[in-house]
Amino acid sequence: MPAVAQLAILAPGLLGGSVARAARARGAAHRIVIWARRPETRDALRGQPWVDAVVATPAEAVREASLVVIAAPVDRIVPLAREIAPALPPGAVVTDVGSVKGPLCAPATEAIGPKAHFVGSHPMAGSEQTGWENGSAELFNGRPCFVTPLPGAAPAAVAMVAGFWTALGAGVVTAAPAEHDRIVAHISHLPQVAASALCSFLAGTDPRWRDHAGGGLRDTTRIAASDPGLWREILASNRAEVLASLHAYRAELDLFMKALESGDDAAVAARMERGRAYRAGFRPPPPANR
Amino acid sequence: MPAVAQLAILAPGLLGGSVARAARARGAAHRIVIWARRPETRDALRGQPWVDAVVATPAEAVREASLVVIAAPVDRIVPLAREIAPALPPGAVVTDVGSVKGPLCAPATEAIGPKAHFVGSHPMAGSEQTGWENGSAELFNGRPCFVTPLPGAAPAAVAMVAGFWTALGAGVVTAAPAEHDRIVAHISHLPQVAASALCSFLAGTDPRWRDHAGGGLRDTTRIAASDPGLWREILASNRAEVLASLHAYRAELDLFMKALESGDDAAVAARMERGRAYRAGFRPPPPANR
Repeated sequence: MPAVAQLAILAPGLLGGSVARAARARGAAHRIVIWARRPETRDALRGQPWVDAVVATPAEAVREASLVVIAAPVDRIVPLAREIAPALPPGAVVTDVGSVKGPLCAPATEAIGPKAHFVGSHPMAGSEQTGWENGSAELFNGRPCFVTPLPGAAPAAVAMVAGFWTALGAGVVTAAPAEHDRIVAHISHLPQVAASALCSFLAGTDPRWRDHAGGGLRDTTRIAASDPGLWREILASNRAEVLASLHAYRAELDLFMKALESGDDAAVAARMERGRAYRAGFRPPPPANR
Repeated sequence: MPAVAQLAILAPGLLGGSVARAARARGAAHRIVIWARRPETRDALRGQPWVDAVVATPAEAVREASLVVIAAPVDRIVPLAREIAPALPPGAVVTDVGSVKGPLCAPATEAIGPKAHFVGSHPMAGSEQTGWENGSAELFNGRPCFVTPLPGAAPAAVAMVAGFWTALGAGVVTAAPAEHDRIVAHISHLPQVAASALCSFLAGTDPRWRDHAGGGLRDTTRIAASDPGLWREILASNRAEVLASLHAYRAELDLFMKALESGDDAAVAARMERGRAYRAGFRPPPPANR
């Protein structure tokens, strides 16, 4: 894909800051313009080598943009789409990095079109870290990135968004918004809740125990350090799918407990083996980038 | 602690192989003798620079030992203790690396004493890997290691075992066997079951989803790759404590689901924050050693 002439990034956190760094490092955009809500963030961003201009309003940021990345938390994506719509040049392409797609893609598309195009994205590259300062030009390298066009989306806009993420090193997966939400409920939101609930439960046990934690507990709970405010919005936006995955997980846990309780250790081992085989089928991990 | 004159390691897997490597690298033992059950394992061990002798029977391995480490799976520790007892020199100290202590320490102590001494150990340094080939001289460095003497244990024997693990780089935690089992049910066995059940459940979903896994699912489920045969015995040996921790975890999960189901997103965020604060209180991780 040819480099984007002008890339606008709105409300950069870990992901938005990494988009800017990666686009600069890989020559994926000629000019990078950023808007951040807080004046002190804008001041700090002005000193970064991967930013060409920092502006005071979202409208100003997108006025000459060919590609806009809305990097805000899920509850602020649609309001920002509505805010920038009047300022977008005709034919501009807008995407986002939100962890939920169903509730966002239709209203964002309605707000942006038909003058410009909205095509949702979700790079699977978050971590328990937050803030643009913690971003990395390699964050997307080898990571999956969902691109979730609505049925009527312009093929050229979809291709531009997919090509941009590919240029940043991600492996693009195209899915309908509702399909995306069902998938991430299982492979992202459920593990988050399982890890958070594990830590929330252990918080009520003897506080000295935690000092004896081995690598297993550390890894299993790493994402429990994530920002509860961000996750509150993600879970609320994907409530039905997350609840369905949680109910199914709890049913599996119940069967595991019943087997252990009744002394059916062969059934315990069989469930563990099923899990082991599943885990062994994971793709090799992407190059270390944290 | 002065170096152990002769260290015997029985049935080395990941942990036993690492004990030998670490003892050699840190000068914690003058002579290292190993017994392994399978002849082909004994042949392979003979070529290793951290082994002084490989012998064909457990009794032969311990005949001149000052410290014996039984590195077998939990269901084979007491039988091995009984087998070596007649061959032990008076005053020898025997320990193990089993993940469960309550059901082992009393019968092992009875088998070994009073001529020699048994003091249980549990280094929290396992991983999803197995086999002595995957061992490392740094495996115990910065890791907790439980030492679980019975009330009547000889202080010199307890000091020898604790001093040996300290020499290998571990941080020694002394606990009664039953207390140990309650602690590890929560901080080791529960995370294992949670990770295995997560993978066992996901194994029934669309197999393509797994290719989209981000770092969160990878970390949360790493230990699900562990050996089901080993874990079957560990969970069976600590059944009551593991079930208690699982019931309590499920109750926390239920409260989380109820909050999400009823739209009480503030309660969802509060539970996540409780988990976040707990996770943030973990000690800094030990130096990378995998």
